[in-house]
Amino acid sequence: MKSVVVRNIKRAPQEAVSQLTGAGVSTVHEAMGRIGLMKSYMRPIWAGGDIAGPAVTVLAQPGDNWMLHVAVEQCQKGDVLVVACTTDSTDGMFGELLATPLQARGVQGLIIDAGCRDIKALKEMSFPVWSRAVSAKGTVKATLGAVNVPVVCAGALGNPGDVIVADDDGVVVVPAKDASDIAAKSRKRNDDEVAKRARLASGELGLDMYKMREGLAKAGLYYVDNPEDV
Amino acid sequence: MKSVVVRNIKRAPQEAVSQLTGAGVSTVHEAMGRIGLMKSYMRPIWAGGDIAGPAVTVLAQPGDNWMLHVAVEQCQKGDVLVVACTTDSTDGMFGELLATPLQARGVQGLIIDAGCRDIKALKEMSFPVWSRAVSAKGTVKATLGAVNVPVVCAGALGNPGDVIVADDDGVVVVPAKDASDIAAKSRKRNDDEVAKRARLASGELGLDMYKMREGLAKAGLYYVDNPEDV
Amino acid sequence: MKSVVVRNIKRAPQEAVSQLTGAGVSTVHEAMGRIGLMKSYMRPIWAGGDIAGPAVTVLAQPGDNWMLHVAVEQCQKGDVLVVACTTDSTDGMFGELLATPLQARGVQGLIIDAGCRDIKALKEMSFPVWSRAVSAKGTVKATLGAVNVPVVCAGALGNPGDVIVADDDGVVVVPAKDASDIAAKSRKRNDDEVAKRARLASGELGLDMYKMREGLAKAGLYYVDNPEDV
Amino acid sequence: MKSVVVRNIKRAPQEAVSQLTGAGVSTVHEAMGRIGLMKSYMRPIWAGGDIAGPAVTVLAQPGDNWMLHVAVEQCQKGDVLVVACTTDSTDGMFGELLATPLQARGVQGLIIDAGCRDIKALKEMSFPVWSRAVSAKGTVKATLGAVNVPVVCAGALGNPGDVIVADDDGVVVVPAKDASDIAAKSRKRNDDEVAKRARLASGELGLDMYKMREGLAKAGLYYVDNPEDV
Amino acid sequence: MKSVVVRNIKRAPQEAVSQLTGAGVSTVHEAMGRIGLMKSYMRPIWAGGDIAGPAVTVLAQPGDNWMLHVAVEQCQKGDVLVVACTTDSTDGMFGELLATPLQARGVQGLIIDAGCRDIKALKEMSFPVWSRAVSAKGTVKATLGAVNVPVVCAGALGNPGDVIVADDDGVVVVPAKDASDIAAKSRKRNDDEVAKRARLASGELGLDMYKMREGLAKAGLYYVDNPEDV
Amino acid sequence: MKSVVVRNIKRAPQEAVSQLTGAGVSTVHEAMGRIGLMKSYMRPIWAGGDIAGPAVTVLAQPGDNWMLHVAVEQCQKGDVLVVACTTDSTDGMFGELLATPLQARGVQGLIIDAGCRDIKALKEMSFPVWSRAVSAKGTVKATLGAVNVPVVCAGALGNPGDVIVADDDGVVVVPAKDASDIAAKSRKRNDDEVAKRARLASGELGLDMYKMREGLAKAGLYYVDNPEDV
Repeated sequence: MKSVVVRNIKRAPQEAVSQLTGAGVSTVHEAMGRIGLMKSYMRPIWAGGDIAGPAVTVLAQPGDNWMLHVAVEQCQKGDVLVVACTTDSTDGMFGELLATPLQARGVQGLIIDAGCRDIKALKEMSFPVWSRAVSAKGTVKATLGAVNVPVVCAGALGNPGDVIVADDDGVVVVPAKDASDIAAKSRKRNDDEVAKRARLASGELGLDMYKMREGLAKAGLYYVDNPEDV
Repeated sequence: MKSVVVRNIKRAPQEAVSQLTGAGVSTVHEAMGRIGLMKSYMRPIWAGGDIAGPAVTVLAQPGDNWMLHVAVEQCQKGDVLVVACTTDSTDGMFGELLATPLQARGVQGLIIDAGCRDIKALKEMSFPVWSRAVSAKGTVKATLGAVNVPVVCAGALGNPGDVIVADDDGVVVVPAKDASDIAAKSRKRNDDEVAKRARLASGELGLDMYKMREGLAKAGLYYVDNPEDV
Repeated sequence: MKSVVVRNIKRAPQEAVSQLTGAGVSTVHEAMGRIGLMKSYMRPIWAGGDIAGPAVTVLAQPGDNWMLHVAVEQCQKGDVLVVACTTDSTDGMFGELLATPLQARGVQGLIIDAGCRDIKALKEMSFPVWSRAVSAKGTVKATLGAVNVPVVCAGALGNPGDVIVADDDGVVVVPAKDASDIAAKSRKRNDDEVAKRARLASGELGLDMYKMREGLAKAGLYYVDNPEDV
Repeated sequence: MKSVVVRNIKRAPQEAVSQLTGAGVSTVHEAMGRIGLMKSYMRPIWAGGDIAGPAVTVLAQPGDNWMLHVAVEQCQKGDVLVVACTTDSTDGMFGELLATPLQARGVQGLIIDAGCRDIKALKEMSFPVWSRAVSAKGTVKATLGAVNVPVVCAGALGNPGDVIVADDDGVVVVPAKDASDIAAKSRKRNDDEVAKRARLASGELGLDMYKMREGLAKAGLYYVDNPEDV
Repeated sequence: MKSVVVRNIKRAPQEAVSQLTGAGVSTVHEAMGRIGLMKSYMRPIWAGGDIAGPAVTVLAQPGDNWMLHVAVEQCQKGDVLVVACTTDSTDGMFGELLATPLQARGVQGLIIDAGCRDIKALKEMSFPVWSRAVSAKGTVKATLGAVNVPVVCAGALGNPGDVIVADDDGVVVVPAKDASDIAAKSRKRNDDEVAKRARLASGELGLDMYKMREGLAKAGLYYVDNPEDV
Repeated sequence: MKSVVVRNIKRAPQEAVSQLTGAGVSTVHEAMGRIGLMKSYMRPIWAGGDIAGPAVTVLAQPGDNWMLHVAVEQCQKGDVLVVACTTDSTDGMFGELLATPLQARGVQGLIIDAGCRDIKALKEMSFPVWSRAVSAKGTVKATLGAVNVPVVCAGALGNPGDVIVADDDGVVVVPAKDASDIAAKSRKRNDDEVAKRARLASGELGLDMYKMREGLAKAGLYYVDNPEDV
């Protein structure tokens, strides 16, 4: 690993970021063709956060948050900080003292494949964090990492400038070059679902609405009246 | 596995279901003689849900929610949908678009040994779900399973029509044939506990109330005044 | 293991306990030199609890809560009950009927390296619990353990009388003999952080406030303008 | 749970058991329609064991091996002992002193959803065990369970008399009533595979042998020559 | 995800691959600057395998091995097949019938972030596999994936043509463009270690050989003669 | 944590160590009253190792093996090195270059609550290691820890000089002051088992040999002839 900080990154277009905001992680993930999702162990430290923004990425040594301090300076208003570790760790590498300058710069939130602490304070600040764990375990500042290099965070590849979308369902990474396309597809999916929900709420079955019956029968599904007939 | 849907199942008596509603999973599990409990990784996606109802069961391929659409049609008012997978999975096999028709039919909630998504919407709908994980990971509709066959869900055997009791403590399965008996025993346990709680709240010790001292001494427990005397 | 109950334990000084109350687990853990923290799987069953008190310790057989009943009698006002198991278990060894007499005696809360049940009732009682799991799984009362002996709970060594500090960030154990020293150090850390937070909130970088730039450069960190320059 | 021992169980036909011996867990599991498999955490304590036999089942309290002693008496030559626990446990509930009388009675091996100890001795005895863990953790003899009742072991439902097939790939349960049918299907699968293996070894592609190309194209698979063309 | 197969990939230079063969995963990982390593849950199904070769990559749906059949055709002599899944799975997606044509084509081995079966047969064939699990769980052939696209496998990014190095210590991915450089650095590290091992075997301390004493003292390490002096 | 190395430790009596060698972890753990056992995730990297010796202890930062180099100098012939981490880690903190000087000094083996690498070489050297994981992940040398202080390793408390007993069943810690007593008790247990094994091998039931029938009946166990009678 090179101990490098990249100053200029190409952020996804602002318009796409705006459209992805509030589109919903599950919808965006579907629009992506079901890729780009971080593993389900990444959970919000408080419910209700819902953000989208370009990634500033950090690759850190587990139990060492030196590079997070370095990364703060590279963040702009609207960014989302994404922290990956070289190996699995639950140490509490992030807390109130790092959130304060990030929030001062307009950073929207943090995605960290490690632990987070100062939960109560972060909630009071309304600073959203998605993490692998909550842990008070403090960290050292001894070993270098890198900022704004490609990282694998919670199983998903993230490049600097990619759009991070995060809500109560999890975290998905949208490549910067696909952001506009995915934003449009996500909007379309959400528009389509409004009508579907109405039909389903009125009692229509998905079996009929999606016209599944024929496919199911063809695949071999059959019905019996009673358990004894199985 | 046979790709079958059983249409008519024998649901536990409505009276027993009513009595089990609100009886408390911990109490019901005790009344069962401490069996029938799903594993503790099954957690509510929002706190406060408290349901009891006959099970409609689904056995699904992991990452494939085709059979959930099939199952909706088999559900009646008051039922609880129970989804087991052929192998461990955290994929988000259930969300708002499946909850909508279930709620329209009066289904009380979902128990799924896999992931769930659209957390925020489900909470707004007050549709309770107990799941193994929260995950936005979408699913395919490609492989058949079965509906209303016996399943092993989160380590517990569930037959169609059995009563599912679920609250913040977890999920327990009460066999349909035992439902009336267990309902009565649960009520008795809860009645007994009212008096016990009052005595304990007033300062009485469980050691005395349960008359444990003799048994403890007989088993060999002894007291010393100071650490050095151990 | 000896099946013993130690009646008199040396509790940490009340003044130190008072100072540690509300000091914050993350701060106290730092003041300890980053030791004494329980593993991050120990989570509060409801958010917002924040306690500090001398430990009454229990070593129990997994799935057996007989010794918890024994321990109640050894607890005084302000104590925190700490339960370790001889092997990993998620069984629900603690619930409302044990919390009631503890609360009647003024015990502040429970730390248990096993499961907890009656979640809803415990929250209504405002009785805080940190546990490894939530589980309705009931327990037997068949095998002895010990009370007020040294225990390893969730990876941390705890002696009777040590101060347990617990909040939303987790649980830390402060040895009774170090309690006054750690309390003073924790207060100092918290005082120092007030000023730091103000500077960071105003836009100052940690890089500058902590004077990290020289150290980072010396360790070999370098900056490039563009990804192509890495 | 009733504390009961059932003396007479209906074992699967001996002929079917013989045919299932050596058929291979993966093959048998396929012949079953891909159900009945225990979870993959069940691993042999030594490689190379390969058994099939009727199940004698035990439901035990975790950390308590009293019922295993009871079960020995119910075992006949050729049986396989299957132990499930009421909750997850890795305690070493089985070792040389239990294997000795089992082997004396002609029992073929043990399946235990808990820990096993005396690994070296069991290997020297050539007594095969599939377990969740290896652990020296000793157990108590204090709480009753049941023998020869239906159990859920490592996620699979097992009834007394069902055929247990176990090898280096894992453990599968074949219901007694299906044993002859599954044995025949397994034999057929194995016979078919001999020819297939020969064709594949000679360089033929599965794509062609299984005639997959058309289905893949229909499903939308396409080929490009270079990464840039994706 | 696009359902695409890329036919022509740029494999790392053969000379570098040869040099990396037998260099040792731990050494290569150090030469990489401690990146590129797959997670430690990736274990060989039999000990002693030691391979290096260009990656042919597969992205598959969990529990579906259709794309593995597709990938066989894209493999050349000396390649290593690398299989990633869209979500975590332990299903046995690979066995003897897939290993046979791979071995016929000269493929060196398999890396799969899922389960593997037919363990005994694969060992007899001397076909090495590194997997997340051993599982007999069979798979369907229903959903498309992709071949020779970039994948995240067990936490490591792998591009088609990258060099996979695997032995009893685990699996590391060397980017094709860095392969020659890393091969040279690995050789140098191994050469250097020969002399070091000899000195250490003769009784010299690492403390002296690596001249650590000054750095340790500077960092604050101190020695005391007795426990009481701490 | 103090960054200290304690030079003189009080090792358990050599005679007790000799008697504990080969006594078997399961037996010693029973003789201890079923305490002192490390968690079952601690597994040997190769089977057949069987050691007992006084502990030299290390507390290290995860992913940092600086203190292991320091510890080598404190080891004497016959010692066992025990490494605990301040938080959970699977990094490969130990390999051939550390084993070489340890073996040169006559150290018997390593117990490490982290990862180990160079598996093949360590096996060739016949240097036994019990670890949490196998991992090639290299470590830094940046942060101090301590040598010969009390540690919690894999859930067990270990003091310098305590006897570590390790074999294929796991690892147990015997306090130095109890070593002679436990050695005697272990020998007695092993002597007793010889006769028991002979009786059991001849067909006698544990039910009769341990006279369990009366206790079981008293506890409520009953027998029925057929499943229908339950």
